[in-house]
Amino acid sequence: MMIVMKQDATEDEICSVMERIESVGACARRSPGEVVTVIGAIGDRSHIARLNLEGSAGVERVVPILKPYKLASAEIRHGERSVLDICGRRIGGDHFALIAGPCTVESRDQLLTAAHSVNAGGATMLRGGAYKPRTSPYAFHGLGIEGLWLLAEAKAQTGLPIVTELMDARDLEPVLEVADVLQIGARNMQNYALLSEVGRSGRPVLIKRGLSSTLEELLMAAEYVLKEGNEDVILCERGIRTFETAYRFTLDLTAVPMLKELSHLPVVVDPSHAPGRRDLVEPLSLAAAAAGADGIIVEVHPAPEEAICDGPQQLRTEDFARYAQKVEAAAAVAGKVPFIPATV
Amino acid sequence: MMIVMKQDATEDEICSVMERIESVGACARRSPGEVVTVIGAIGDRSHIARLNLEGSAGVERVVPILKPYKLASAEIRHGERSVLDICGRRIGGDHFALIAGPCTVESRDQLLTAAHSVNAGGATMLRGGAYKPRTSPYAFHGLGIEGLWLLAEAKAQTGLPIVTELMDARDLEPVLEVADVLQIGARNMQNYALLSEVGRSGRPVLIKRGLSSTLEELLMAAEYVLKEGNEDVILCERGIRTFETAYRFTLDLTAVPMLKELSHLPVVVDPSHAPGRRDLVEPLSLAAAAAGADGIIVEVHPAPEEAICDGPQQLRTEDFARYAQKVEAAAAVAGKVPFIPATV
Amino acid sequence: MMIVMKQDATEDEICSVMERIESVGACARRSPGEVVTVIGAIGDRSHIARLNLEGSAGVERVVPILKPYKLASAEIRHGERSVLDICGRRIGGDHFALIAGPCTVESRDQLLTAAHSVNAGGATMLRGGAYKPRTSPYAFHGLGIEGLWLLAEAKAQTGLPIVTELMDARDLEPVLEVADVLQIGARNMQNYALLSEVGRSGRPVLIKRGLSSTLEELLMAAEYVLKEGNEDVILCERGIRTFETAYRFTLDLTAVPMLKELSHLPVVVDPSHAPGRRDLVEPLSLAAAAAGADGIIVEVHPAPEEAICDGPQQLRTEDFARYAQKVEAAAAVAGKVPFIPATV
Amino acid sequence: MMIVMKQDATEDEICSVMERIESVGACARRSPGEVVTVIGAIGDRSHIARLNLEGSAGVERVVPILKPYKLASAEIRHGERSVLDICGRRIGGDHFALIAGPCTVESRDQLLTAAHSVNAGGATMLRGGAYKPRTSPYAFHGLGIEGLWLLAEAKAQTGLPIVTELMDARDLEPVLEVADVLQIGARNMQNYALLSEVGRSGRPVLIKRGLSSTLEELLMAAEYVLKEGNEDVILCERGIRTFETAYRFTLDLTAVPMLKELSHLPVVVDPSHAPGRRDLVEPLSLAAAAAGADGIIVEVHPAPEEAICDGPQQLRTEDFARYAQKVEAAAAVAGKVPFIPATV
Repeated sequence: MMIVMKQDATEDEICSVMERIESVGACARRSPGEVVTVIGAIGDRSHIARLNLEGSAGVERVVPILKPYKLASAEIRHGERSVLDICGRRIGGDHFALIAGPCTVESRDQLLTAAHSVNAGGATMLRGGAYKPRTSPYAFHGLGIEGLWLLAEAKAQTGLPIVTELMDARDLEPVLEVADVLQIGARNMQNYALLSEVGRSGRPVLIKRGLSSTLEELLMAAEYVLKEGNEDVILCERGIRTFETAYRFTLDLTAVPMLKELSHLPVVVDPSHAPGRRDLVEPLSLAAAAAGADGIIVEVHPAPEEAICDGPQQLRTEDFARYAQKVEAAAAVAGKVPFIPATV
Repeated sequence: MMIVMKQDATEDEICSVMERIESVGACARRSPGEVVTVIGAIGDRSHIARLNLEGSAGVERVVPILKPYKLASAEIRHGERSVLDICGRRIGGDHFALIAGPCTVESRDQLLTAAHSVNAGGATMLRGGAYKPRTSPYAFHGLGIEGLWLLAEAKAQTGLPIVTELMDARDLEPVLEVADVLQIGARNMQNYALLSEVGRSGRPVLIKRGLSSTLEELLMAAEYVLKEGNEDVILCERGIRTFETAYRFTLDLTAVPMLKELSHLPVVVDPSHAPGRRDLVEPLSLAAAAAGADGIIVEVHPAPEEAICDGPQQLRTEDFARYAQKVEAAAAVAGKVPFIPATV
Repeated sequence: MMIVMKQDATEDEICSVMERIESVGACARRSPGEVVTVIGAIGDRSHIARLNLEGSAGVERVVPILKPYKLASAEIRHGERSVLDICGRRIGGDHFALIAGPCTVESRDQLLTAAHSVNAGGATMLRGGAYKPRTSPYAFHGLGIEGLWLLAEAKAQTGLPIVTELMDARDLEPVLEVADVLQIGARNMQNYALLSEVGRSGRPVLIKRGLSSTLEELLMAAEYVLKEGNEDVILCERGIRTFETAYRFTLDLTAVPMLKELSHLPVVVDPSHAPGRRDLVEPLSLAAAAAGADGIIVEVHPAPEEAICDGPQQLRTEDFARYAQKVEAAAAVAGKVPFIPATV
Repeated sequence: MMIVMKQDATEDEICSVMERIESVGACARRSPGEVVTVIGAIGDRSHIARLNLEGSAGVERVVPILKPYKLASAEIRHGERSVLDICGRRIGGDHFALIAGPCTVESRDQLLTAAHSVNAGGATMLRGGAYKPRTSPYAFHGLGIEGLWLLAEAKAQTGLPIVTELMDARDLEPVLEVADVLQIGARNMQNYALLSEVGRSGRPVLIKRGLSSTLEELLMAAEYVLKEGNEDVILCERGIRTFETAYRFTLDLTAVPMLKELSHLPVVVDPSHAPGRRDLVEPLSLAAAAAGADGIIVEVHPAPEEAICDGPQQLRTEDFARYAQKVEAAAAVAGKVPFIPATV
């Protein structure tokens, strides 16, 4: 940590800061400049942070030097990338995952139709929500347990691993019976109790970036899971909130190469929720794949007009195979190996 | 809901939209313009919303006309403002509440010193966190149950009602034994399971606006609580995330008069977390009071330099009485009745 | 325009709004709903806008129905895309333009080296700034006229059309002697005097999106140019300002397909300024091309370490040819025709 | 400047950075830490900045230590505040300025009615636009020279100093004949040619913060004016762009105390443009004054319903005197001296 002193800081103020740093067992190094003095504090970050030096007499500002996350950082693996194996489907490194399925599990027919279509089209996992966070208390909140059963049936029929959201730690047990990947939604990215629980569960976790979360905060959320000994974390960019109102959220694709530089964890992109409209999903999917994403999690529905939730943004099942081929071509530009079997 | 058709929408597309509106029992009214046709859909909002008309053939966009919240709206009380009575301390209407205390309960001595100081200085309630949401899994997360006991002792000694945060529905029972107001933190503003639980508890709830939540989303969070039959909700502006990096968050004081126009619920402001520094807390507090806030929730600590969490933003107990008097003067400009007894 | 009345608007207030609409020669249509009344105003948009109905008694809000731009809209060309011909290089439709060169013209040697390199590597135009807008009055502001001469020499040697920025209407004459495309920088996107001048000049114009401009505002800036009879406008996304601090600006690639839906004008992307660092330029370039951009304007320098301005984000000339080939492959995924001659 | 090296930076990379710093005549100081090495560069900031160390081999990031502005900084006056005298009306320090008048000069009658009303109500200066920047090329752009004549007449009749906007350097001469304060609008805050011109004019300048400009950028805009020898600069907060759509812009009142800490220049607030609606203007004005603003610049119109521009946000002349008295009371809470003569 570097402490930048004010231009008019007195010698006493400088010494007082140095003494406080040393009082917690850290080492204080003074760098006098022509205009201001900078003090380096070397030692345990959390001890130094608790000194609350911001706002102390003579202190202009405190600049953190080290990153606050460790287990999620690229450095911990010396640049090697994590490759997860989800029931035989790999994600990360050269491996691209295409996770597809309806926004919400609505009925047996809807889910199985979607599951068979995306499986035939080249998807590598199936997504679908049994528990849905909704802005309105009056909206449909998912089929719950019944939705989980349907997901289990879809998996049995297609062999596709299941990605589904957990909203409430009290639902962990039934969800674990079905989910191959536990999804933490954007609204729960900083629900720390929930993150710790899924960490302890040991099941792979996909964490969506909160709609105004920095990359550092997303990595800190991953750190909550990793800290419990669960190494299988996937990061997901799904759009951030900006001033632009032409679309619901602004997909931040710079996050893809940046997260891959900061962390060893796989990075996927959700191209459906940000634009909120079907016609923008394909160009954004191609962009995400070309930017080097390790996967895409996209919404597909057999009859979007009749969807209970987010119909306008869901791709049609009949368009999926062609879409998947274009995504594969874009991923190839970024160096990924083909994920659609030649026979599809 | 108004459906704006594209300029080149065909007659068939227009009819198809109207038929779908009528298929859910709503009424469709066509307003042909010189350039585009607009279709009004009148009837149950949730039924029409499920039609997913956005993205349908010929549809340019869908404009909602009615507000999505009902119980939180100003209209439901015909302009009358809610006044809450928290153990005899009123908030809302002409009544201003000054809620003060440390960020986190750290020790018996720290809490009781702070409690007696703010009580003597004119505070109307005591705040203090026993459970703390922290960005880092390695940081201090509060004293938990022990912190709750200390809050109970502070209340017994000073008579101040207690405002404290609930982070996890599984902690509801012990927190209810102490809290007169349950605080829902900004990170949990869209934790719907938690909102429903505190709704069912019947205890007054203070909901902090999420750092990138719109006012409409904040009111929808209130709606989750109100829907359970709990009428005692306080809204809290605490700063939003913007591009400006000179301070942690940007306090949005326009939210104060705007929320008071949209809703009957009391609106308070947290001037501590947004600037993250002590010297900006007073000007922002005066601004909030002058803007018409129904209260302020501010952090005060007997020795901020030694605070475990957020020391740099906490006011000093010795400065509190003078601060409270200035806040009262600013609130008076906005028409509030004095809240500091003349004998203080 | 639709005027949404308040729930408790009186009959008198409704009639008063209708009378005012009709007083400017427009037609007022009343749509009574179950809860609120909506009034449609049909006629000249600018007349109705000047009625200032927002804030009138009984009015909840005013919803514009028509887009404020005409000449820039997709509708005016019935979906056909504009293809510009810049000295024989085409941009728009199926044609992709790779505009490359140094941020700033620094010296004869630097510019000519860069120009020959990008020409050999497959660039279709040369960029370079003679006049540089700088946040600091103490920074280097470009070589001015001398820089223009050097650009002219580079064009003579390579045949590459020149894209260069105009900052001040008083410099228009000398800039017109060299520039094949006049660039309007992000900071000047709403400098309306400048936009009108370049409109009158008749020379092709590339307008960069302001760092907090909506797509609608960018299209309105284009409208200022188009209105003067100049049809050759290129739109450029270059990153917007958000809360994320891991990079300078957040590149908004959703803008690419969205602008192409709203407008007939070509859309290019600047992948250099937003990340502010070289290693992110390639993934963002591939993403932009895969998203369907009509071109990329990228910074390339023979010795970025010695660049006077923005060195860290400039590609190295020796890496350019390989980069250009990857961009071409990504553009092909989005359906663009090859732009690098097979002999390169 | 501090250069933070990567965790795995080699000794060669560290030495190379130090050599480059010393090659421009600056001094390099190495601070080895437990995890990373930090190098301090002491010497001329602009020389070091041109080294482009970001992105160099082994460099993690570069942290600027000194502020980029000098003449605008609080340090240059050792904490003393600038007090400007505009034709006998003071602003800054203990002096509060209430600048009021119509958004746009529309007619002789409109302007003189407004001028006399605000003068009688206690305003200290008159505002009014003769040149109006408009998002649409089809909108009214002001009366131009004729508007300037009317402002001169209003000044002659009331004695109020005139604040009016300059949009184009080519209009400087006529505007200087009337304006006592030259206003630079938010869209032109980074129009550096214009800033330099008004700097050279020597006339007091009011600079509005760009709608996505940081405080540092606003101070750099002031620096452009100050650098030309013009010491009379007023900073103006007028709302920034955020994700919130309930109002046009989000007024950032934290900017008021923060700018007063960073700079010696007076800070005023425009409470009219951000909310865009009359009923929010008073609470925001009171908030701004209580936050310590040195003045307010507010729009007042004799018949807002008939205003050509921004009618819904303009106060009515008949409400102005009462409004001014409340603003004065709020400013008093922040320590300002009364500005309304007792006889008003």
